Amino acid sequence: MKAIRYDGTQARFSADAPQPTPLSGEALIRVELAALCNTDREIMAGYVPHYNNIMGHEFVGTVVSIEQDASTTPADLALVGKRVVGEINLNCNRMDCPMCSIGRTSQCPQRTVLGIHDKDGCFADYITLPTRLLHAVPDSLPSTQAVFAEPLAAALRITEVTHISPDRPVALLGDGRLAYMSGQVLALTGAPLTVFGLSEEKLKMFEPFAAGTRLLGQSTQPDSSPVAESDQQSYEVVVDATGHPSGLSTALALTRSGGTLIMKSTYASNVEINMSEVVVREISIRGSRCGPFAPALRYLDRGLVKLPEIEIHQPAQFEAAFASHAFKVALDFSGD
Amino acid sequence: MKAIRYDGTQARFSADAPQPTPLSGEALIRVELAALCNTDREIMAGYVPHYNNIMGHEFVGTVVSIEQDASTTPADLALVGKRVVGEINLNCNRMDCPMCSIGRTSQCPQRTVLGIHDKDGCFADYITLPTRLLHAVPDSLPSTQAVFAEPLAAALRITEVTHISPDRPVALLGDGRLAYMSGQVLALTGAPLTVFGLSEEKLKMFEPFAAGTRLLGQSTQPDSSPVAESDQQSYEVVVDATGHPSGLSTALALTRSGGTLIMKSTYASNVEINMSEVVVREISIRGSRCGPFAPALRYLDRGLVKLPEIEIHQPAQFEAAFASHAFKVALDFSGD
Repeated sequence: MKAIRYDGTQARFSADAPQPTPLSGEALIRVELAALCNTDREIMAGYVPHYNNIMGHEFVGTVVSIEQDASTTPADLALVGKRVVGEINLNCNRMDCPMCSIGRTSQCPQRTVLGIHDKDGCFADYITLPTRLLHAVPDSLPSTQAVFAEPLAAALRITEVTHISPDRPVALLGDGRLAYMSGQVLALTGAPLTVFGLSEEKLKMFEPFAAGTRLLGQSTQPDSSPVAESDQQSYEVVVDATGHPSGLSTALALTRSGGTLIMKSTYASNVEINMSEVVVREISIRGSRCGPFAPALRYLDRGLVKLPEIEIHQPAQFEAAFASHAFKVALDFSGD
Repeated sequence: MKAIRYDGTQARFSADAPQPTPLSGEALIRVELAALCNTDREIMAGYVPHYNNIMGHEFVGTVVSIEQDASTTPADLALVGKRVVGEINLNCNRMDCPMCSIGRTSQCPQRTVLGIHDKDGCFADYITLPTRLLHAVPDSLPSTQAVFAEPLAAALRITEVTHISPDRPVALLGDGRLAYMSGQVLALTGAPLTVFGLSEEKLKMFEPFAAGTRLLGQSTQPDSSPVAESDQQSYEVVVDATGHPSGLSTALALTRSGGTLIMKSTYASNVEINMSEVVVREISIRGSRCGPFAPALRYLDRGLVKLPEIEIHQPAQFEAAFASHAFKVALDFSGD
């Protein structure tokens, strides 16, 4: 089969990679479309230690077969022949696991992660995944939209764990893809949303649903705040989706006392924080990562979250796909 | 009247300080007992900039008179002659205040703070406070216990804002006074509490209510964890009451994925944090400060929170009081 593997040094396309065999409880899935994410770029840049797998974790595909086990349900079997998307954290799913046993399956310490950690990913004609991680795609939803389910689920993790009151001001830091999806999820709460970004052009994309946008000041003075005084300590909930260490202090400056700062950004370095300000102003800082697929598919199917057209490349031309600056880029595995 | 003022350079006892005059809506209170807190020691060490006030913010006293205004209630007037304790944040209490108008009165940006920020404190024969900040002390509760209401309220801020499930493990970092009160509040939830401290002797005090105590390792290797592997990522809620910047990383090591880390510690310096770990493990970090007085008085009156005897000094001997290492030290203002 076709596949793109990164071996720790180089990413290579292969036309005759071995097809995976589903384990007991897993489905074999024929990949149709697989989308690129910044995490894939980081893997290609060597940021994930000891990586040696087929890449990719955002996909739409069709279930070919299911390897039944004792927990296989009729609903699982009904997935054969259906289009699906899939959650990426392959948890151990055992009741003696401290995380799985309390429902925190995506935090399972034994987990592998599709295309990211020790599990071959979806830049391939075929993948395998446990049936419990699959979600059927509604017939009415095109694959070019369904492929956004995984990143949209990550945006939905914000409202899954934090109550966003519709009458309290919300700020979003960042103007990238995750920010764009998070912004739409936040605006759907009814709360007035202000988006802070570095690019005037990208901020325009947020105008249809944001109450306001702000170009972040890029001051040359190190101790001056990048946000205007009228925005300081003004937002009940602030989401940092900048992907940059400086996002934390800017987000803290925007959060009002007693408010919540949600961190979606990861980065390699440690960051300095004025923890006494966090204590005295009683700020909550919440880390946020993977989220729920079912509401993501509902949002996409109802058209409540609108996403730009994706740019599609052939797998053999994956390097051009990685070099693209389009909003969303995908590889088409539907061909022979 | 007797009073102890710190003028930015030195703390001085005076026998003839002017008696304060209550503003409209305020009560005049005759102080009986005023307790020392580490914050007072920090003020004496010059850590609070521009400080020039009578010190002290933990007290029990008797209401002498009330200066009525339009909002004075019969319940306020009934306080005259009664023993009271008082909240320390004098908020503006206006509906055009972004914090007071949503009930976050202790975060009012215009607030003064009794004996801490721009408001004369309770190391004096008389103080004034708005009647809305006063809480009547039950007749059955001795003043030597009621004087713990303010720090116990700060401990109760933990359970006021964070749900502590009785069947999930809780860790407390610190073995000082705030930790001792926080530990009792945490143990009253029914959750199994493990206390981590630096002093074997102090940890013994926690044994009556803790499920376990641990002496924190003081490793000489900078990159080794101060907590045992079996405790790492094992606690649903972790409270840092160490008062030390190193508490944060130790607390983070103890918190399990998806759990909550409550910060009660303030310190002058910034602190470094691995924010990507917070995001990937979906930790919540919550700053926590002043809390509710009414449940503190209920706990003390029912004897559910037990506190050691306090050591009492005369105001003129305040320097001996500050030098004491007793669990709780108070100044007796009841005399002439």
